[in-house]
Amino acid sequence: MYRTHTCGELRQNNAGETVRLAGWVQRTRDLGGMTFLDLRDRYGITQLTFSMDEQPELCKKARKLGREYVIQIEGKVRERSSKNRQIPTGEIEIEVSSITILNASQTPPFTIEEESDGGDELRMKYRYLDLRRPPLRENMILRHKAALATRNYLASLEFMEIETPFLIKSTPEGARDFVVPSRLHSGEFYALPQSPQTFKQLLMVSGYDKYFQIVRCFRDEDLRADRQPEFTQIDCEMSFVTREDVIQTFEGLAKHLVKEIKGIEIGSIPQISYDDAMRYYGCDKPDIRFDMQFVTLQSRKENIQHIQPNHGFKVFEEAEAVIGICVKGAAEYTRKQLDELTDFVKRPQIGANGLIYVRYAADDTFKSSVDKFFNADTLKNWATHFSAQPGDLLLIMAGELDKTRKQLSELRLEMGTRLGLRKKDEFKFLWVLDFPMFEFNEEDNRWYAMHHPFTSPKEQDMAALSSHPESVKANAYDLVLNGSEIAGGSIRIHRREIQEIVFDILGFSRDDAKEKFGFLMNAFEYGAPPHGGIAFGFDRFCALLGGYDSIRDFIAFPKNNAGRDTMIDSPSEIDSNQWDELHIKQNKSNS
Amino acid sequence: MYRTHTCGELRQNNAGETVRLAGWVQRTRDLGGMTFLDLRDRYGITQLTFSMDEQPELCKKARKLGREYVIQIEGKVRERSSKNRQIPTGEIEIEVSSITILNASQTPPFTIEEESDGGDELRMKYRYLDLRRPPLRENMILRHKAALATRNYLASLEFMEIETPFLIKSTPEGARDFVVPSRLHSGEFYALPQSPQTFKQLLMVSGYDKYFQIVRCFRDEDLRADRQPEFTQIDCEMSFVTREDVIQTFEGLAKHLVKEIKGIEIGSIPQISYDDAMRYYGCDKPDIRFDMQFVTLQSRKENIQHIQPNHGFKVFEEAEAVIGICVKGAAEYTRKQLDELTDFVKRPQIGANGLIYVRYAADDTFKSSVDKFFNADTLKNWATHFSAQPGDLLLIMAGELDKTRKQLSELRLEMGTRLGLRKKDEFKFLWVLDFPMFEFNEEDNRWYAMHHPFTSPKEQDMAALSSHPESVKANAYDLVLNGSEIAGGSIRIHRREIQEIVFDILGFSRDDAKEKFGFLMNAFEYGAPPHGGIAFGFDRFCALLGGYDSIRDFIAFPKNNAGRDTMIDSPSEIDSNQWDELHIKQNKSNS
Repeated sequence: MYRTHTCGELRQNNAGETVRLAGWVQRTRDLGGMTFLDLRDRYGITQLTFSMDEQPELCKKARKLGREYVIQIEGKVRERSSKNRQIPTGEIEIEVSSITILNASQTPPFTIEEESDGGDELRMKYRYLDLRRPPLRENMILRHKAALATRNYLASLEFMEIETPFLIKSTPEGARDFVVPSRLHSGEFYALPQSPQTFKQLLMVSGYDKYFQIVRCFRDEDLRADRQPEFTQIDCEMSFVTREDVIQTFEGLAKHLVKEIKGIEIGSIPQISYDDAMRYYGCDKPDIRFDMQFVTLQSRKENIQHIQPNHGFKVFEEAEAVIGICVKGAAEYTRKQLDELTDFVKRPQIGANGLIYVRYAADDTFKSSVDKFFNADTLKNWATHFSAQPGDLLLIMAGELDKTRKQLSELRLEMGTRLGLRKKDEFKFLWVLDFPMFEFNEEDNRWYAMHHPFTSPKEQDMAALSSHPESVKANAYDLVLNGSEIAGGSIRIHRREIQEIVFDILGFSRDDAKEKFGFLMNAFEYGAPPHGGIAFGFDRFCALLGGYDSIRDFIAFPKNNAGRDTMIDSPSEIDSNQWDELHIKQNKSNS
Repeated sequence: MYRTHTCGELRQNNAGETVRLAGWVQRTRDLGGMTFLDLRDRYGITQLTFSMDEQPELCKKARKLGREYVIQIEGKVRERSSKNRQIPTGEIEIEVSSITILNASQTPPFTIEEESDGGDELRMKYRYLDLRRPPLRENMILRHKAALATRNYLASLEFMEIETPFLIKSTPEGARDFVVPSRLHSGEFYALPQSPQTFKQLLMVSGYDKYFQIVRCFRDEDLRADRQPEFTQIDCEMSFVTREDVIQTFEGLAKHLVKEIKGIEIGSIPQISYDDAMRYYGCDKPDIRFDMQFVTLQSRKENIQHIQPNHGFKVFEEAEAVIGICVKGAAEYTRKQLDELTDFVKRPQIGANGLIYVRYAADDTFKSSVDKFFNADTLKNWATHFSAQPGDLLLIMAGELDKTRKQLSELRLEMGTRLGLRKKDEFKFLWVLDFPMFEFNEEDNRWYAMHHPFTSPKEQDMAALSSHPESVKANAYDLVLNGSEIAGGSIRIHRREIQEIVFDILGFSRDDAKEKFGFLMNAFEYGAPPHGGIAFGFDRFCALLGGYDSIRDFIAFPKNNAGRDTMIDSPSEIDSNQWDELHIKQNKSNS
């Protein structure tokens, strides 16, 4: 037996016991005739002591141990004279009687502490050392707990976890598939699933009623920051449900996880329509940790006009929409700060032409960048629309409606960040409902499904499906947490004739639809129940619960932005006989 | 809301309630003026009643419903006059007041009952219908429960579930990898994991101490019956452990699962060495639901000679080994039965030259196929070696030691089956220990690792590693259930120099070893703890717990023996632009 206890376990009431511990050397300190060694494992740190007077050989041996050496010791637990209240084992130390070196260690390429001095690239290459650092360990523990809590919660509601295949069929629609050449079937390929969507629908046709799976999914996309080619979903589906049933069930899951992981009770989750989300936040995943809703002064599309005509300010006259936000207590913003904000919205990623401000000073006076065109009364009138108080700052943007909303949304988030309103330890969920069913893509002149092609239109829009696809709302829902989409789902189509109409609108030929999804369409003819579901981005959900922005810190072995695992050096070349067996050769013409 | 209750929920105490149910039409029966309809969902079957006298329109509607129609009904629960004690809802029926057809169904291509009339191929193509059958549903439920119980059990022992990557590196050694061409890195490939072996070892280096994962693994092998290209493992690893620690931990898991799933307490699991398993059962995964151990009458290698010389029976004289089993109470086997057994061992799959029998009749006389060479005294002497009683039958085989053991092992299993000794509801586990470290392959004249290259030799054999690899035992263990290997593992190498010697013996060049496993060898230099682990074949374990021979019945969407999913028709062709993007083209020269 290598150990009688872990390094996080011993307390004052163990004093006097002879114990055996094993772990890593975190650090050693020599203080006069004494040497102190912090021994670390996953569970904690225990202080070991060696006396040069009493056991000179042992003490010398301890002094030679380098950081990250793996050792096993025996010794007696004793109460510390000066206790360390910072750590659970701080009441005791071990008077060591023997040391066994289980393995030596080279000096690690970066420090293995709370904060590391290693750069991203170095830490990725030595991921197995980075994973020793306490923050990453905490993240992995959080993820483990969240997965287990999810499984037990859903199982308690009679959901069954059912594993679906990874070697499936390539049905490119949306993102690119990773494919796997078949050795047994020359020229043919499996594909890795982007999600188990069709399989979970088949399980509903099979009568499994309530399915879930925590499952790896794959997308061969050009990697943006914080995307991974493989990611994990909590994938769920239910039969005989309406949208409200699904929402209630998974609102329960979200609440349960926040309670289990963070110890926080969140109340009922508010709901907003897609249209309102765009109107009040300019985006479909609003961060509602802070308010700062949009106020529309002018929108020709919506017949809103709160700006008196003939003001002579061309920017507004030519604008489809004039929209703003009221930043509470920010009237004192300096010219420099306001210039910074203007620069912020003019960055190419945002692309606005400019920013108008109105300072509503504490003394009830107004100062704005459009004083030339609008008098104090007019500004006061605007302020009323914004429910602004003295001391507030109005930030206003103008242009095309959709673009302006997007730009102002970025500014709103920036102001939230600047004012410290986006707290990592606050958890604000929001359901976004009633998405449009389709988006028209001007480039290839066709409709795309805003969720996916299996999403059902809302019942009342069913009649307009063929004739007015642009007007049709999907029976779909997203769950947003702190401004990130963490889950999305929908009630699905369960009747073949509706699925065929949707495929028609999306420009699939009947042959194409049959080739790719014939099995699902056929299944709909053998008693498919009404069904719907949802999928959570598990990596993202964990990251947000942990207070992190990046999912990479919640994945044990992530890939870099080039889709590469630099630790194992993958992807990599394969042997020539592997090429041959798979009946493929390299096509260098487009490499 | 589609339903107030499921079809498995209503009892006598619900009588009088108005309920709403939804489900599938299992069958309808017209009895005079009444129609009875069995409504089915995952949870059970509820009987609906319609009266032609009272509600003729509704009753007519019910009579038109086909099998597998999906309907929703409302009605009143009432106590049945003739109760069905076979099903939990058999006390009640529903007097229906309205029916809504949620979806129609074509006539299924096979019957959806306990036993189906559909052939394998048809049921694979319509897997979503086959999955409706109660036996498959029970299997999926068992699998779900076993996975959840595993997770909770291991988590309670402080194991953490940590997800490892699916897009890894091809390191062919043993089975073939499935590979995934990289779009971003022309000519390079990811590989799908055959197991997370190296990653779980890295997690031990990272200090995670106790890891597990229920995880999909992939092997591109030529498919034998009951192999799947993708399969699921309960994958586990622990630090600071000896073999005994690992065995104790996972013996606990095995017991827990049998208790949870089958309600059976199994006692302590016996252990046997590999050598003894071969000696007494002729195979490394003995089925110990029945005894029938081998008795060696002659083995030149082992210096065993219980047959008197000069008997003149050439078969024995020329044989390296003569080994037999005693079949209790089978002395009455007829000549025809004995001929069948001889035919059985002579089949090419077994390949024996013949079979010798000795009938030890109830009247204490002997009758054997070698009466010409051996007298009754000699046969009696043999019988003593076998601890045979009057009424028993000895079956004896002769030839090379290893071959004869394998052949006799097949015969032993056959006898166990014939005598009904291999009961599906009996669960006999066995640990097999002390496997040889290496196997020599005559064909390519090299050593192979019997487990895998990361397995540690036993401490006492370490010195002989380079000089006498054939004598070295691995610190490895298999868990066998009812004659199937359900788990295998080992204490791993955790020191670079030992790993290098093993790679040397296996014929890896230093460059090759570095190219493929350099990251692991490097990791060993930064404080790798002693560690070991195990992996359970989860599909097989579930199948055995369920009393099935085939894993296919425990996988929701399995592939056929050609590695094909005939339901979705995969593998399949991909678009030409997918080929182009992946920088590959078809190599028809060896298609």
